[in-house]
Amino acid sequence: MNWLDDERRNKLPERAAWRFKLHEVIFEADTPLGKAFDVLLILSILASVVAVMLDSIYTVQVHHGTLLYGIEWFFTLLFSLEYLLRLVCVGRPFKYATSFFGIVDLLAIIPTYLSLFLAGSQYLLVIRILRILRIFRILKLATYLGEARLLMQAMRASGRKIVVFLYTVLTLVVIFGSLMYVIEGPEHGFNSIPHSIYWAIVTLTTVGYGDISPQTPVGQAMASVVMIFGYAIIAVPTGIVTVEMSHAFKRKVSTQSCPECAAEGHDVDATHCKFCGGRL
Amino acid sequence: MNWLDDERRNKLPERAAWRFKLHEVIFEADTPLGKAFDVLLILSILASVVAVMLDSIYTVQVHHGTLLYGIEWFFTLLFSLEYLLRLVCVGRPFKYATSFFGIVDLLAIIPTYLSLFLAGSQYLLVIRILRILRIFRILKLATYLGEARLLMQAMRASGRKIVVFLYTVLTLVVIFGSLMYVIEGPEHGFNSIPHSIYWAIVTLTTVGYGDISPQTPVGQAMASVVMIFGYAIIAVPTGIVTVEMSHAFKRKVSTQSCPECAAEGHDVDATHCKFCGGRL
Amino acid sequence: MNWLDDERRNKLPERAAWRFKLHEVIFEADTPLGKAFDVLLILSILASVVAVMLDSIYTVQVHHGTLLYGIEWFFTLLFSLEYLLRLVCVGRPFKYATSFFGIVDLLAIIPTYLSLFLAGSQYLLVIRILRILRIFRILKLATYLGEARLLMQAMRASGRKIVVFLYTVLTLVVIFGSLMYVIEGPEHGFNSIPHSIYWAIVTLTTVGYGDISPQTPVGQAMASVVMIFGYAIIAVPTGIVTVEMSHAFKRKVSTQSCPECAAEGHDVDATHCKFCGGRL
Amino acid sequence: MNWLDDERRNKLPERAAWRFKLHEVIFEADTPLGKAFDVLLILSILASVVAVMLDSIYTVQVHHGTLLYGIEWFFTLLFSLEYLLRLVCVGRPFKYATSFFGIVDLLAIIPTYLSLFLAGSQYLLVIRILRILRIFRILKLATYLGEARLLMQAMRASGRKIVVFLYTVLTLVVIFGSLMYVIEGPEHGFNSIPHSIYWAIVTLTTVGYGDISPQTPVGQAMASVVMIFGYAIIAVPTGIVTVEMSHAFKRKVSTQSCPECAAEGHDVDATHCKFCGGRL
Repeated sequence: MNWLDDERRNKLPERAAWRFKLHEVIFEADTPLGKAFDVLLILSILASVVAVMLDSIYTVQVHHGTLLYGIEWFFTLLFSLEYLLRLVCVGRPFKYATSFFGIVDLLAIIPTYLSLFLAGSQYLLVIRILRILRIFRILKLATYLGEARLLMQAMRASGRKIVVFLYTVLTLVVIFGSLMYVIEGPEHGFNSIPHSIYWAIVTLTTVGYGDISPQTPVGQAMASVVMIFGYAIIAVPTGIVTVEMSHAFKRKVSTQSCPECAAEGHDVDATHCKFCGGRL
Repeated sequence: MNWLDDERRNKLPERAAWRFKLHEVIFEADTPLGKAFDVLLILSILASVVAVMLDSIYTVQVHHGTLLYGIEWFFTLLFSLEYLLRLVCVGRPFKYATSFFGIVDLLAIIPTYLSLFLAGSQYLLVIRILRILRIFRILKLATYLGEARLLMQAMRASGRKIVVFLYTVLTLVVIFGSLMYVIEGPEHGFNSIPHSIYWAIVTLTTVGYGDISPQTPVGQAMASVVMIFGYAIIAVPTGIVTVEMSHAFKRKVSTQSCPECAAEGHDVDATHCKFCGGRL
Repeated sequence: MNWLDDERRNKLPERAAWRFKLHEVIFEADTPLGKAFDVLLILSILASVVAVMLDSIYTVQVHHGTLLYGIEWFFTLLFSLEYLLRLVCVGRPFKYATSFFGIVDLLAIIPTYLSLFLAGSQYLLVIRILRILRIFRILKLATYLGEARLLMQAMRASGRKIVVFLYTVLTLVVIFGSLMYVIEGPEHGFNSIPHSIYWAIVTLTTVGYGDISPQTPVGQAMASVVMIFGYAIIAVPTGIVTVEMSHAFKRKVSTQSCPECAAEGHDVDATHCKFCGGRL
Repeated sequence: MNWLDDERRNKLPERAAWRFKLHEVIFEADTPLGKAFDVLLILSILASVVAVMLDSIYTVQVHHGTLLYGIEWFFTLLFSLEYLLRLVCVGRPFKYATSFFGIVDLLAIIPTYLSLFLAGSQYLLVIRILRILRIFRILKLATYLGEARLLMQAMRASGRKIVVFLYTVLTLVVIFGSLMYVIEGPEHGFNSIPHSIYWAIVTLTTVGYGDISPQTPVGQAMASVVMIFGYAIIAVPTGIVTVEMSHAFKRKVSTQSCPECAAEGHDVDATHCKFCGGRL
């Protein structure tokens, strides 16, 4: 989540007054104008995402297709202008363009231009939803960012164990899928090994669409094994993440001891000792 | 769960004798009469909920429709009378009317009256099931309330992390849904982006109805990614809640609030407020 | 799991020699004859369960129906004889008859006799599978019983919290089910409120058969809420059980301190101090 | 995971120079030639697995069947040669042949020869995917092996508890399945008790294909019980594994064995064997 700080670090003193002013409006959320800009931006993003979604509904497109087409281009041009202004007013344009938000901002306008050549690509505009992440900054949801950082930290700590787990799952799925292809065969819907692997994933993850399901007794016995496996090994990632979270959250207990009575174990938000009332 | 105490706090000394007596019968469960009233009330609630459910079954309605209609109105009038009596005998009627139980009590009678104008709304009477929560008070299940409070506390402590998690899930679902709409398209049942998002939710939560399922190899590969994702990230809320519960059960945070600064959330072994240092 | 000890406590000294001998063979697994009896018993149980299962398969029943019917009566008479012998040789017949195993032993023979009057009840003979629990005693799987006791203990400790959780789930399911009945109605398969509650359970538990699934956009939005709910609140029982297990398992660390160096934290199976090598 | 070290222990000094050189190329990944060999091997494995998968797709087989048949035999002969070379250059051929990798290497070539007599068995060649495990050695992913060892250790510690859990699940599934067979019967798709047990597994593990689903109200009520059961008891393996992982990660049990009594499982901070008191 450190890309949120990236933008902040971009503001450098050696810039023209108007660029500095523009930067404050576009990148900051501390001034009234800056906040108004951010609120307007998020409303525009939401409106444009809703427009893209509506456009994909057949009956809506038939009746309001031209209107939605206009809205799409309006927002795309607006966001293109905003992107250019961001590039102009920021201290290091290249750094912004290669940052998380810079890439998302660009991806949020490309599909419309692309749709001139490649029909259907305009629906990828929903990537704009990622721009909503800015909402955390506007609403001063710093604590939420803190929580997100904690979660991220736990995820990263579990990273290598999760890779080992995923590798095991993938190997299992390939072997189970192939066995089922041999057992059931194309006449029962298991058309090919990749298709059977797809079935194995659907079953192991306990999703169970039912578009393909074993018909023979042997196949059903095999499927039962896969299901009980999938039911039991969900415990593995859960255990990994729980333990790592427990570590990540634990560090939040203050190590400060009371200067008066030397008691320990205070919460990080405590300002007074909970045993003697002395100032920490 | 503090709405259960709300009612208790409503009894004030400055009331007429009959109102006081009525209050004791209706709101308290300590006297034999009060307990009898509560038991009767809960039986009435259960009977009325069963009647509403039976009324919704076609064959039952055809044969016993008039009877069930009569029962429905009987219970509605009974509960309306009870609601009025509660308003009359309680010390602060407005406080009761806006409390959790006050709102539920009102919602439990409105749908019948509404059904005179709006057919079908009478089925919303099942909201009466929430009134059964009173059962915890009658049966003196104070320990169960304690457990519920612990669970609630753990939930509230995980609140912000769960919001971050839900936001992530919703973003994923919008992006995956849109991608599947582009990949599979209306000819394979993915009619629109909102419909595809619905599919993505069905898949990510591992429900897997099978009413819509990917047909193309690329779509199935994409779906596999969504499934493994959904299978793995269930670990996140589980981890959050487990860790918070572990804290909540271990610390058993005191319900005492500071008499000086009214702050809450002190440890049970605390003798001074951790925010202002005042004696607890 | 204390019913396993119950049987042992039944042997009393004041019994005839042949009854004592019989008791030793039937109830104990320490002598060669006692062990042989138990192994034979378990093989008989497995054979009879397999026979009941085979009997339920149409093609098998058509060809081998009479044979399976004979086998069923053979095992039933055998188990009846065994039940009578157990009653005869045990010290306190009434205590055995009302113990866990006594009831299971009786239930394991009743369905055959019942099937003379009530067709189909013979399939309930699979209850015999519970008799297999005796296998733990034969194989001297005391450690497995210890593990089972630990799990049981964690379950019982979580009992009250699980009740609160189940009550919440049932209330949610009734309300969500009724709402869906009003939203979707019988024309989309939601025939009645009980049927809709069944759908809500299928969805909330992420099973998702797909025999009933929402058709209208509002219904699908509602279903999405139920799914995300079900996906998230699975964390609650998991958290409860994990925390209670963590407590139940923790008590296994020895509280003994080294008599030589006073170090603590030894495993329960340790016989020497891990720091100084002194005898514990 | 100690089979990875097995290979290393195979290299003994008393071997001819060319055998020693060959061993270094085939079994080691430290020299440039050895690394090149391993990378080539893994690419060959991947290519052959992809070929097997493609061969199972009908349209591909029709058009490129002969080519894929050729590729399959090419890789099989290549891997057969590699297997023979491994046997030749290794210090103790028998030990390698019976090690984990030795068996996998053999299984990875047998199905092709088998397919000459038994059509369809060539699809079992996907077992070759297990050979990819060697990738961990090439990429020097020692830390990943460490993580895998930790996970394994947690799994083994939970072993007995998981067995008790699985036994409970299987008993439940047999009893629930038989009850559903009696309640629903063959006219609603529950053809036999084994088939109903399959349904019970599909439901309890929350997979829910929907190929068989209860039709009668009683059956649906019963199914609801199974579902809520399955939803709740997933907490048990999760709890077990989480607690064991928490222990495994915390203690980081030493791999050192006692030089006097050869006992294992000592804590990392232990200086003396906890069983005989000998110095570690």
